[in-house]
This record gives sequence, C-alpha cells and structure tokens, in this order.
Amino acid sequence: MISVALLGAGRIGALHARNLAAHPKAHFAALADAVPATAEKLGQELGVPVRGVDEILADPGIQAVMVCTSTDTHAELIERAAAANKAVFCEKPVDLSSERIRACLDRVSTSGAPLMIGFNRRFDPHLSELQRRLREGEAGEIEMVTILSRDPAPPPVSYIERSGGLFRDMMIHDFDMARFLLGEEPVEVHAVGSSLVDPAIGRAGDVDTAAVLLKTAAGRICQISCSRRSPYGYDQRIEVHGSKGMLRAHNIHTSTVELADAGGFRTAPVMDFFLERYTPAYRRELDHFLYCVASGAPPRPTGEDGLRAQMLADAATVAHQTGQPQRIPE
Amino acid sequence: MISVALLGAGRIGALHARNLAAHPKAHFAALADAVPATAEKLGQELGVPVRGVDEILADPGIQAVMVCTSTDTHAELIERAAAANKAVFCEKPVDLSSERIRACLDRVSTSGAPLMIGFNRRFDPHLSELQRRLREGEAGEIEMVTILSRDPAPPPVSYIERSGGLFRDMMIHDFDMARFLLGEEPVEVHAVGSSLVDPAIGRAGDVDTAAVLLKTAAGRICQISCSRRSPYGYDQRIEVHGSKGMLRAHNIHTSTVELADAGGFRTAPVMDFFLERYTPAYRRELDHFLYCVASGAPPRPTGEDGLRAQMLADAATVAHQTGQPQRIPE
Amino acid sequence: MISVALLGAGRIGALHARNLAAHPKAHFAALADAVPATAEKLGQELGVPVRGVDEILADPGIQAVMVCTSTDTHAELIERAAAANKAVFCEKPVDLSSERIRACLDRVSTSGAPLMIGFNRRFDPHLSELQRRLREGEAGEIEMVTILSRDPAPPPVSYIERSGGLFRDMMIHDFDMARFLLGEEPVEVHAVGSSLVDPAIGRAGDVDTAAVLLKTAAGRICQISCSRRSPYGYDQRIEVHGSKGMLRAHNIHTSTVELADAGGFRTAPVMDFFLERYTPAYRRELDHFLYCVASGAPPRPTGEDGLRAQMLADAATVAHQTGQPQRIPE
Amino acid sequence: MISVALLGAGRIGALHARNLAAHPKAHFAALADAVPATAEKLGQELGVPVRGVDEILADPGIQAVMVCTSTDTHAELIERAAAANKAVFCEKPVDLSSERIRACLDRVSTSGAPLMIGFNRRFDPHLSELQRRLREGEAGEIEMVTILSRDPAPPPVSYIERSGGLFRDMMIHDFDMARFLLGEEPVEVHAVGSSLVDPAIGRAGDVDTAAVLLKTAAGRICQISCSRRSPYGYDQRIEVHGSKGMLRAHNIHTSTVELADAGGFRTAPVMDFFLERYTPAYRRELDHFLYCVASGAPPRPTGEDGLRAQMLADAATVAHQTGQPQRIPE
Repeated sequence: MISVALLGAGRIGALHARNLAAHPKAHFAALADAVPATAEKLGQELGVPVRGVDEILADPGIQAVMVCTSTDTHAELIERAAAANKAVFCEKPVDLSSERIRACLDRVSTSGAPLMIGFNRRFDPHLSELQRRLREGEAGEIEMVTILSRDPAPPPVSYIERSGGLFRDMMIHDFDMARFLLGEEPVEVHAVGSSLVDPAIGRAGDVDTAAVLLKTAAGRICQISCSRRSPYGYDQRIEVHGSKGMLRAHNIHTSTVELADAGGFRTAPVMDFFLERYTPAYRRELDHFLYCVASGAPPRPTGEDGLRAQMLADAATVAHQTGQPQRIPE
Repeated sequence: MISVALLGAGRIGALHARNLAAHPKAHFAALADAVPATAEKLGQELGVPVRGVDEILADPGIQAVMVCTSTDTHAELIERAAAANKAVFCEKPVDLSSERIRACLDRVSTSGAPLMIGFNRRFDPHLSELQRRLREGEAGEIEMVTILSRDPAPPPVSYIERSGGLFRDMMIHDFDMARFLLGEEPVEVHAVGSSLVDPAIGRAGDVDTAAVLLKTAAGRICQISCSRRSPYGYDQRIEVHGSKGMLRAHNIHTSTVELADAGGFRTAPVMDFFLERYTPAYRRELDHFLYCVASGAPPRPTGEDGLRAQMLADAATVAHQTGQPQRIPE
Repeated sequence: MISVALLGAGRIGALHARNLAAHPKAHFAALADAVPATAEKLGQELGVPVRGVDEILADPGIQAVMVCTSTDTHAELIERAAAANKAVFCEKPVDLSSERIRACLDRVSTSGAPLMIGFNRRFDPHLSELQRRLREGEAGEIEMVTILSRDPAPPPVSYIERSGGLFRDMMIHDFDMARFLLGEEPVEVHAVGSSLVDPAIGRAGDVDTAAVLLKTAAGRICQISCSRRSPYGYDQRIEVHGSKGMLRAHNIHTSTVELADAGGFRTAPVMDFFLERYTPAYRRELDHFLYCVASGAPPRPTGEDGLRAQMLADAATVAHQTGQPQRIPE
Repeated sequence: MISVALLGAGRIGALHARNLAAHPKAHFAALADAVPATAEKLGQELGVPVRGVDEILADPGIQAVMVCTSTDTHAELIERAAAANKAVFCEKPVDLSSERIRACLDRVSTSGAPLMIGFNRRFDPHLSELQRRLREGEAGEIEMVTILSRDPAPPPVSYIERSGGLFRDMMIHDFDMARFLLGEEPVEVHAVGSSLVDPAIGRAGDVDTAAVLLKTAAGRICQISCSRRSPYGYDQRIEVHGSKGMLRAHNIHTSTVELADAGGFRTAPVMDFFLERYTPAYRRELDHFLYCVASGAPPRPTGEDGLRAQMLADAATVAHQTGQPQRIPE
C-alpha cells in the first residue's frame, strides 16, 4: 500500500480522488484544497482526512503526492513535494512558461524524487495499443501522423482568458500524443487558427479552430487539428500512415444500437467528453504511478515530456501569431 | 462470336437484351416477344431484328437461346430449343411444378444441349467471392448459414396471385444460395409465414413475411428469412459460421457520404432493388453462359440446380401450409 | 441502505457479491456457500461475514436475499426466503421443471414477497435502449426479431450433462429476450439442433449448434440461433424489423484500433465472454433490484418471466427431440 | 448528337475515348495521337477514324474537341480549337505555368468558345453529393475541410521528373476539391513535404509525402495530405466540419465480404486506382460536357478553376521550397 495525498479537489482532482479511494494498492492519506469547503465535501464523501498542504508535505508517512491544483501553483508544489522526498504526480501542464518548467525540472532532478506528468491519453487502452503496435512495426516506418481533437462545446470565455490559449490548453495533449507516436522530436511547427465558433473567444485573443503541421528531422509529418465545437460528441481520432500500412484509433460511440429506415442508417453520437471518454485512461494512469512508486521504476510521461509538449505549444502559439513557421529548440 | 437469340422482352428480358447487345463476344441475332410491340420497341433500341419463336428455333445459325418469357412457357421453350440443338439459358424458375421440371430436364438430357438456369446471385462478385472463400476453407467446416432477403416493397397482388407464393417466387433465390453455400443438400425444411405487410397478400392466400430452417444430413443448419418490405432499401445479407470463423457479405450502400450531427451518424440507404443491386451479377452471368457455349464447358447453375431449388420451395410451401416440417426427397 | 445477504459464492455469485460490496445503497450483511472455504475466501476479500443459510433467513435485519446457488436449490431457497418475508433476487433459472417453478411462484405469491429473476441482458444499456426504442415505435409494428448468441467455446461436458441442455441452459436468455422485445407471447416453436462443435456434447445427448423459430398469435416471427463456438469472441447480436425500419444492436469490440495494409482492413475481435460483455448489465440489474426493494416497486423480470422463458425452453427441447413444432400452453 | 473529336490516345485519352464511343448523345467523329500506331490501335478498337489534328480542327462538322495530349501541348491546342470555334474539354492541367494559363484563357475568352477543365473528382457521385449537401447547409457554416489522397504506389521517376512536382501533379486535384468544397478562395498556403517513399524521388528534387494548410479570408481552414504510397489501395477521403456537424465521404472497398476469426474482423482493401475508383466520375464528366455543348450552358469546372488550382499548386511548391507560407494573389 502506497500512502498518497492529493492536492486540489476541483473537477480533475475529484476524479483522481475517487480513483485513488477505490484503488486496492493505495492508502488515501489526506487531501487539501485552497477552498476549505471543497476539500471538506470531497473528504467526507470518500472518508479521507482534510489537511493543510504544509502538514501533508511535512508528514514522512506520505510517500506520494498528486498535484491537481490550479496551473499557476503546479511548479512550486512539485518543487516542494520533491524537496520533501515524495513521488509526485502532476496534472498537465507543469507551467505555462517553458522557462519555469525547466527550472522546476532542474530542482526535481536534484532532489531525485520521481515525477510523472498527467498526459492521460497515453494510458487510454486504445491509444496505448496504437502506440505499441506502431513500435512493433505493424505499419512499418512511420510517414505521417494525423491527430484530430474536437471538444463538444467551448469553455466559458473566463476560462479561455486564463488558459494560455488553445495551443497550450487544448492542443498540448495532441502535441504529447504526436511525440508519443512519432518516436522522434518535431523540429518545425506551422500553425493556423481562427475564431469561428464563438466571436467572444476571438475578442479574448484566442482561437477556437486551429490546425498545425509538424515536421521531424527525419522528414516525418504530423497534422493536428483542434476545434472547440463538435455537435456529435467529443471527437478523438488518430491515424498513422507508415511504409506498410495505416493504424488508426476510431471514436467510441455511446451505444451499439443502429436504426435503419427510409432516411438511411443512424448510429449514436460519440462519447460526450473527456471525463467519460477517458475514464479507463485515468485509472490506468494511476495504476502506473502507483506501480512506479512501489517498484522504483521511473514513471512516464516524465517532466521532460511535459516540457517538450509545452515547447511545441509555445512554438505553435508564436507560429500562429506571427504567421511564420517556428523551429523547435533542441 | 456466339450467335444468340432472346425470347421475352419484359423487364428481365430487356435487361439481358441490353447486356447481350453490349457484349463483345455475342452476336445478338434476334429477339421475340409474345407482344409484338414490346419486341419491336426493344429491337429498335438495340438494332436487333425481331423474329418469331419458330423462325428463331429453326435458324441453324443461332447457337444459343435465352428464355426470358413468362414462367408458364419456360419448360416448353427449353425443350424446343434443346431439341433444336441450341444452348439454352433460362430465367428461373423452369416451372412451378417440380414434376414438370423433371420431365423437361429428362428431355434436355436426351438432347445433349447445354442448359443454364438464371440464378443471378451466384454471379454477384461478392457472393461468389463468399462461396469461393468458404470452399477454400477460410471459415473452416460450415456449421450455420444465415440468409436474409428483404424486398423494398411488395409487388402488386395480381402478381402475387400468379407467382406460386413467396417461397417459390422470392425465397427460391435463397434456397439456391443455401445449396450453393452449404455444399450439401438440405434434407429437412421447417417454415413459418405471415401476412404482416399487406393484408391483401394474406387474402390472396400468400405470406409476405417468412422464415425457414433447413437442416442437412450432416447436421448443418440454414436460416432463411424473407420479407416483402424493407424501408431502407433492398436488404441482401448472408452470414456463414464455420469451425474457424464467420464469413459474411454486407449490403451495398447507395453513397459513401456520412453526416454526423447532434442526432448521431447517418449513412445512406442500401441499393434500391435487384436490377440495380445485381447489375454486375447479370453481366457476369451472361459472360459465363457465353464462355460455356464457346468452350463446351458445362454451364452452372444446371437444370438440376433449378429442380433442387424448386423442390425446396415446394417443401417449404407445404411445411408452411401444414405446420409440419417436410423431408426433401432425394 | 438495504441490508442484503447473498447465497452462493461461485462464479456468478462472486460477481454479484463484488457489485453488492461496491454499491452505495446496499449494506452487504452476510454471505453463505455450501462449500465453507469458498464462502470464507470471498468473505475475507470483501470484508463480509460468513453465516449459515438458516441464520441468514432467520435474521429480521436482513431485508433482501440474492440466490446464486446451484440451480437445483433455487426454488426451495426462494420459497424459504419469501416465507421469511425477504425480497428475493434469484439467478436464472428458477428450476429446470416448469411445474416446480409454477409451484414456487404460487408460494411466493402467497407470501407477498417481491421476486426478481436474473435475466441480466435486459439491463444491458444497449439492449434496454433497443427495447425502449421499439416500444416508442421507431421501427413501427414489429414483424421479425432475429437473435444470435454464440459462446466463445463450449463448457466442459460435465457441465453440459447437468445443464438441462442448450435450449434450457443457453438459449433461455434468448427466449427471455424474444419475449422482452416482441411484446407478445410466442405460441409456436420449431427447433433444429446438431452437435457440430464437440462430438462429446452429442454423446452426452445435447446439441451445440441450434436454431429456433417462434411465432406469436399476431404472426410475428422470431429467429434464434445459438452456438457453443465463436472464434472471434462472444457474439451477441439482435436485429428487429418492423413496418418502419430495422433497429439492431451490434457487438462491442475489444479495441477501436484498426490496421489497414495489403491484406485489407482489420479490427479487433469482440468482447470475450459474458462476465466482461455484460459487466454494466449486472450493475444495472442490481441497481434495479435495490431500487425496487427500497421503493416497493415490483421488480422485473418477474417470476412469471422466469416461468415463461422456461416453458419456451422446454417446448424447444421437445420440438428438437421429436422433430415436431410445439404449441406453447397459455 | 454532338460530333466530337479526341486528341491524345494515351491512358486517360483511351479512357475518355471508350466513354465517348459508348455515349448515346455523342458522335465520335475522329481521333488523333502524336504516335500514329497508338491512334490506329484505338481507332480500330472503337471503329473511329484517325485523322490529323489540323484536319480535325478544320472540319466544321466537328463541334467539340477533347484534349488529352501531353501537358505541354494543352494550352496551344485549347487556343487553336477555340479559335476554330469548337467547344473544348481539356484534361488538367492547362499548363504548368500560371502565366501561360492566363494567356490561354484570355484567348479562349475572346473566341467565346466554351472551355471545360477535367477535374474528374467533382463528378464523382459521392463527392458531388458531399458538395451539394454542404451547399444545402447540412453541416452548417464550414469551419474545416480535410482532404486525404494517397496513391497506391509512386509513378516512375521519369514521370516524376516531368510532372511539375507532387503539388502540381497530384495535389492539384485536392486544391480543386478544396475550392469546390470551401466555397471561398484560399488566401494563404503552408506546405511541408518529404521524400520518404522512394529516395530517387527526393534525388529528382520532388517529394512523395506532403501536407498543406490553406486558410481563407473568412478564416476557414483546409488540411490536405498526399502520399505516393498506400498499401491498402487508393485512399481518397474527405471530411468537412461545420457549425452543425460533419459531412464526410468514405472510401469504396473492393468487396463487401468480411472474415471474422481469432485474429479479428477483416474487410477488403479499397479500390485500387483512379481509373477504377473514378469510373462513374469520368462518365458523368463527359455527360456534363456534352450537355453543356448541346444546351449552351457554360461548362464547369471553368478555365478559371484550372488557373486557380494551378496558382495554389504553384504557391504550395514555393511554400515548400522556401519554408515560408505564401499568400495567394487575387
């Protein structure tokens, strides 16, 4: 049993908290939230004591900490937990600034504490199968990766304003997936974006519809497209072309029932959003973290993975703003 | 070039006539129809001379005859054409009476003339591929065959009244397909039927919705279902289960375009009816007939195939009427 | 919180036990099994006390009992639990004898205790959606129902010998589904069966491949096929044709990943077996039982549903053995 | 009957020639080819007289000319045929130089002769249905268009060397389709390309794998990807996202037969190449040309469509070579 504390009891924190409470190999030792009532409510639901962050980090009985607080607090909490010699799981992103991430990773590295970044999609059973089969060579040498992500509906503009923009907030998952699948670092980014879904998003200086081209040193190409609107559900598709063929992951529909009538054949929309679509991914992500803490195996995705995805998001943001393709620093 | 005459210029006759006129290995020598105006119209369209049946059969230059007249004239025309030493293609069925078919086949056999029966589905590229792959053992030993045929809409009751009933008129294609796929003769037939689509069909003594179970001596099972109604197009599916797996043939949709919106995913209906759905099958059927005439190879489906399908249709009709399963005479 | 005891800790009992232990509205008060070690092992895993059946039934604090013991004990345990004034959930079947079921239901009726029979498929989200949409008229008036069930591999012959035969052991789920979907009682059964998968099954007097035709008083037709072999996974499909169109439920595949290469397009097998395929169904089944106990609503499927399915299974068994279609007594 | 002559009897010329010979509304008056033997062979097959280009253009009885010669002769032949007052159909592209195209179109415009450019995909039944349904608003306001084209295998390097490069030779069809679907001119092009399929293509200065991003003045985005390799057949897919949903056109498979066994579910590859995949498109293209000649309706795609697609291909070529996005001149 690994003794784990969780910091941050918001939407994603509550999800991790429930998985943690149900996990047979975890002892859910404590939880904290900046808003005491939020922490209390979740603590009572799960029968977990609410404690302060300082107290948690000072408790030598707690082996691991899951950081699910607001983004601006991630880097500092990672550093403090690592300094306290705890294994750290942190929700993406480490920070909106690549420089800040780099500094954080340096400190974590010095501490020797293990750090895992929460790119949940790598743990989706289908996407991890896709990646495994690519590595096993079923599609041959990879030539082109196409990733499509479409959210059902845009978040509130208030959220958009603090999000770092679509490339950092939403497409960062796709940048991580691109790296995960390509098996090679992108060196060049082209980006185009528009505000077509909600003019208020444009007025807030962001885009809601965007597409990116990545190219690696070996010449492999990756297409990514994102939208904040998808009337038929949370669209999450990946397609990889290689010298021997194509491997792709389809969407998951909400039902297997089909109607055929004079209007044709109708099947159900796809799963509605990430909490539902990636439920098994979040469980498997936690499994991996706990396994690594127990076994001493280095967890993945690493802090470096978090940094690399952020650098791609930064470069895409600049590419979109300047209209000029950007090179990715090594 | 094979010199061919065609008897009967109705719906199915006209279809064969157009294929014959376009066929590079056929000389379309003459056509006849009981209704002179029908023959004239088609003859002018295709540039083919209209002649009388007697004249056609007496012409030694004509090597082959395609019989597409009304069912009640098939057996006699086959006999006369065979006696005149012509290769004969006859649309199914040879006759509504198995005894009459048997007598006809005896006379054809005596004449030595080749006879092919028009079970077009055997020549559908997909269904013939299905049969070939079954023979090659891809599904292993066959255990169960399921055939589904649904017409878009019922024919006029006046047609139903002269048709011999659903089992002889419509399901006969499925009986032939069952034999084609099973590779073994059914020995037992169970049948249930109802008039659910159009009460007038029931009043005419027929059914419009029916299902049959066949069993072979080796214990293989075949399910057939037919309906005179299918709002989403002409439904034609076959599924075969064997010791190693399943082979099935899906429907063909009228379009590849799909719409996804808040109501889900919508694809087009399936092809509307047999003339459209089986266009390539009719062409390949004619190819086979002409190839056999030219090469001397025995054509298939044979007259015996026509007889066997009719015996199954007869047995199913009795099984439905009496409520008792019927044995198929050897 | 409903206080529930569970009798029988075998495969299906353990499944219900784990769902019960995790259910927020249930207090899992006790469990029992004829083999003490089996009960102890599960009790320790779930932290549930092991008690004797007599003790459980005598405990006035226990409101509900789930009967998951061997089939030959079901009827008596139902009667005793009902006499003790407990709500009863019983795994299918109540008994292999329809007479015994009828006697049991009479006693339960006298007691006034609620009784629910475990036909889990009715609670599958997809199949219950299918049934709901049929009732709402999306397919129009029902004309034909086709149900296909194929197990991945046959059970041991020792199991087959005590099972009551394929029609009672396996197809009983499909008979219940037929009644659930048709909305009308079948009045006639035709059955054919063979031993094609494993000759030892045939020697044990049973079949491993079977097909049935049902007909209702209104003339609706139902096709059911079952096999004890399915190399591509647990095949569970239903298709319903009505006057306005078709509603069908497809299989669930184990992965969304597809490979396209020179050999074509390949997708994953379907889910492997019922415990995996119907995981959500078992949870929803328990939800319904607990909801009914709490609210006083009458649970479904009822004892009468259990009896009706058993009568169809009996009739199919006789139909297969005699080669004669059977009428279903009212 | 329209009297039509065809110039150029190579692969695409022969295809048009066979469609022309079979067309009920065309009189195929003459054909010509730079290689007399090629012309003779096709002429004999189709029973069409072979004549010289000068003679054909001088014949007042010939109303229309189809230009299927090598690309470098297109512009001049168009100009001469237009000057001779004939309706002109010309295979894409008009020329590899946009300036030359512009000059040609000016002369054609002066002559008043109708000119149609052979972008066959607009006439594919599925793609034209897709465009029609977009115009009818089924997907709402268009936000993003994704076009994928993958050839089964690369052409000979000798062909590549004279082709103008992938963007002009292959992707030009996709540029035309983008304009056809977007309903608005792209104003900006980003392009990346690599030689991953065949190093000889790279040595010849071309790419075999490429992706492009287009953006319109209204901010609509189009992704195009092309490859010279596709092991599973000629991959031709289009997906359009709009404010109300997605409309997409799937591939056409070579067979409806599916095998399910222990390895999963396998379906056939997609149609092998453009002559097979777009057979109906070429027929409908000819229908449209002949209809326009007969009725006086202006044919589409116009010369301007040919010019616009070429400008996009030129801009993509420069974008790829310089690594800088290009603006499209108005």
